[in-house]
Amino acid sequence: MKRREFNFGLFGVAGAIAFNHTTLGAQPKLRINGARLNEHLKALSEFGKNPQGGVSRVAYSEADRQGREYVMGLMRAAKLDVQIDAAGNIIGRRAAANNDDSLRPILFGSHIDSVPEGGNYDGDVGSLGAIEVAQTLSENNVMTRHPLEVVIFQNEEGGLIGSRAMDGELGEKELDLVSRSGKTIREGIKFLGGDPTKLSTVKRTKGSIAAYIELHIEQGGILEAEKLDIGIVEGIVGINWWDVTIEGFANHAGTTAMNNRQDALLAGAKFIEAVNRVVTSVPGRQVGTVGRIQALPGAPNVIPGKVILSLELRDLDARKIDMLYQKIRGEADHIAQTSRVTFDFKEINVNIPAPTDARIRAIIDSSAKELGLSTKVMPSGAGHDAQDMARLGPVGMIFIPSIGGISHSPKEFSRPRDIENGANVLLGAVMRVDAS
Amino acid sequence: MKRREFNFGLFGVAGAIAFNHTTLGAQPKLRINGARLNEHLKALSEFGKNPQGGVSRVAYSEADRQGREYVMGLMRAAKLDVQIDAAGNIIGRRAAANNDDSLRPILFGSHIDSVPEGGNYDGDVGSLGAIEVAQTLSENNVMTRHPLEVVIFQNEEGGLIGSRAMDGELGEKELDLVSRSGKTIREGIKFLGGDPTKLSTVKRTKGSIAAYIELHIEQGGILEAEKLDIGIVEGIVGINWWDVTIEGFANHAGTTAMNNRQDALLAGAKFIEAVNRVVTSVPGRQVGTVGRIQALPGAPNVIPGKVILSLELRDLDARKIDMLYQKIRGEADHIAQTSRVTFDFKEINVNIPAPTDARIRAIIDSSAKELGLSTKVMPSGAGHDAQDMARLGPVGMIFIPSIGGISHSPKEFSRPRDIENGANVLLGAVMRVDAS
Repeated sequence: MKRREFNFGLFGVAGAIAFNHTTLGAQPKLRINGARLNEHLKALSEFGKNPQGGVSRVAYSEADRQGREYVMGLMRAAKLDVQIDAAGNIIGRRAAANNDDSLRPILFGSHIDSVPEGGNYDGDVGSLGAIEVAQTLSENNVMTRHPLEVVIFQNEEGGLIGSRAMDGELGEKELDLVSRSGKTIREGIKFLGGDPTKLSTVKRTKGSIAAYIELHIEQGGILEAEKLDIGIVEGIVGINWWDVTIEGFANHAGTTAMNNRQDALLAGAKFIEAVNRVVTSVPGRQVGTVGRIQALPGAPNVIPGKVILSLELRDLDARKIDMLYQKIRGEADHIAQTSRVTFDFKEINVNIPAPTDARIRAIIDSSAKELGLSTKVMPSGAGHDAQDMARLGPVGMIFIPSIGGISHSPKEFSRPRDIENGANVLLGAVMRVDAS
Repeated sequence: MKRREFNFGLFGVAGAIAFNHTTLGAQPKLRINGARLNEHLKALSEFGKNPQGGVSRVAYSEADRQGREYVMGLMRAAKLDVQIDAAGNIIGRRAAANNDDSLRPILFGSHIDSVPEGGNYDGDVGSLGAIEVAQTLSENNVMTRHPLEVVIFQNEEGGLIGSRAMDGELGEKELDLVSRSGKTIREGIKFLGGDPTKLSTVKRTKGSIAAYIELHIEQGGILEAEKLDIGIVEGIVGINWWDVTIEGFANHAGTTAMNNRQDALLAGAKFIEAVNRVVTSVPGRQVGTVGRIQALPGAPNVIPGKVILSLELRDLDARKIDMLYQKIRGEADHIAQTSRVTFDFKEINVNIPAPTDARIRAIIDSSAKELGLSTKVMPSGAGHDAQDMARLGPVGMIFIPSIGGISHSPKEFSRPRDIENGANVLLGAVMRVDAS
């Protein structure tokens, strides 16, 4: 396959790339600037930096807004035509050669919002990697057949809000949900410079994009453990998130006998254990998590009368998620009876599993191999904006190793060399898609 | 015993009470004004009132300060000499007959701060009942042999802060703890008009009080269930409160396999169950509660790396509390090993069990009987300022029924007639102590 790879190499498709100031024969291999990319990552880490390490740059926070300003500056330096769409996504457009608009755009990018007390690689690597690709093309005066769009999606961590607006999945009702910033999503979109009354202008139709490619850290430990360079994502797991409200009865912790209590937190504790037991009761890679809990009124000397907690289930197979959920509901019914409390489940968000495109997986593989990098096809346990883009056209995802598999934590780390590799694979993949 | 009761009746001890404007023979039985007392309770309920019912008048909040202003107004109307001591307690003093200062003061009162989302009877009944007693004495021009002091202790719900200052137990270190208001106790004392640098002026010596008597709602369901009017408290349970910190490892909820997690909340859930199991494993009236929990970072898609929760144990026997605590520590050690987390226990507050005074118990019983009320000797499962006053002199507590045994809840309720009865028993008890 060496010959074929060469044929589809970065400069192997004459006519697909317009060279303004260089000649084909003398052209060195096009490569991104790894040192610059890693410097940009460091600079971005200052926005929302926590004293104890890592970053809290939750969507719609002041840190988020300032980080976006910084990123837009980088995009303008890369000669991208930068706009904030009505949903608050940042779009940096690069025209096709000769301003030809006949081909559909190739999109690539990621997000820069973080979870509370998160790290500096989740989202940031793919966002700044995409901008670095655009910068590299600009510096080398490489023109493409397709228009390119670097997209920085808003509020990925809070439920893929920006990308869901783009495929028309963001409903009016959801705009009133309160995000981690304290603002509703509606307020957050305005805060970022979008216009929540004009979301219809953001929606794209199925088939309107040539491709969407996202570079991201693995967020698991497989690539590092197996000493591999690049993960090629076969699909993104479905994610279902419910808020569970348990109602008991608040009462005095000193005067209410143990057998006379309706302790919502004790019931919640039993529920958390049940979730773990159900999810681990069947083989597979499914995961289930209770990550958030609130007990009310929340005083040491009051029996909690109400508990609100989150339940999240993930798997590549939507039917498995449903099977686990039904089992968990059964456990909740049992706890409700024995603990004299009630359970209420409210579905907050559903992201259906999304397979990636076979052709783009092959292109990513070729790009990696051309760079001498080892690869592995793997699922993504994390949700990504790519899963929404999969509704609009073919998508691909490039993973680089996460040291120790740690993510959503200040200890999240990816090696500078891996980040550089990832951005070069992205560059190669974009050029190959453009050529194909 | 009818005759003896008569002898110790309110007006049976000539010479002990100075009558300025009435004569002994024509004197009607002295009674408080129940309608007025219940109106005052209603008025106080406006300060910190919650839209959904009940009250949130946590110590050092604006609602607390305004409620105190209202209460001080009532005290002044009752001709009490009102001062805020350096600890922020409100003291309303009433001089003895002929300004005689040779006898030690009789103290009575309670508190008006509430738990978050609390009710309108816990503390309020005893506070306004005490003021009503003073008002009744004033209106009837009854002078006493002892000086009287109506005390409204500050921040009872946050750890008996005001009464602990009075017996010298409030340490310098504790002043920096953050209370539910968000303020430190030091800031809270200043906010209420006290002076935390002068706490030594508040401290009273052992034997410096003739008695402390507190009227309070039962906060349990025994009196109502047994259709009794008045509870005579035999002792106040000891209360130990720890904050427990569980450290695991925060990580991505999608990419971290179930068997690779160090989930602090799952460990916390096992701990909450263990507390319940240990406390209910031995016979007795002991209680154990986890009322507060915080999971960090607190997002649905992040495995909690840290959990902080409260542990509270209560019993009339301090040795039993210690025995239960040691068992719970053993359970925590086991969870730590199997869940790969660490546990840290920090003692926040210890109130040792406090017996009441046998003579005052008999006086309360006589006062109730004289009013034709039924009584029962019972422990107090709740902590009260009386337990600190027990270090300074003889104490007694008068309970009235709590409907449904509900307390620390918006549904807390005591019948107006029971409230009136309780205040009349308090009046009788104060007069009997004064006479004896």
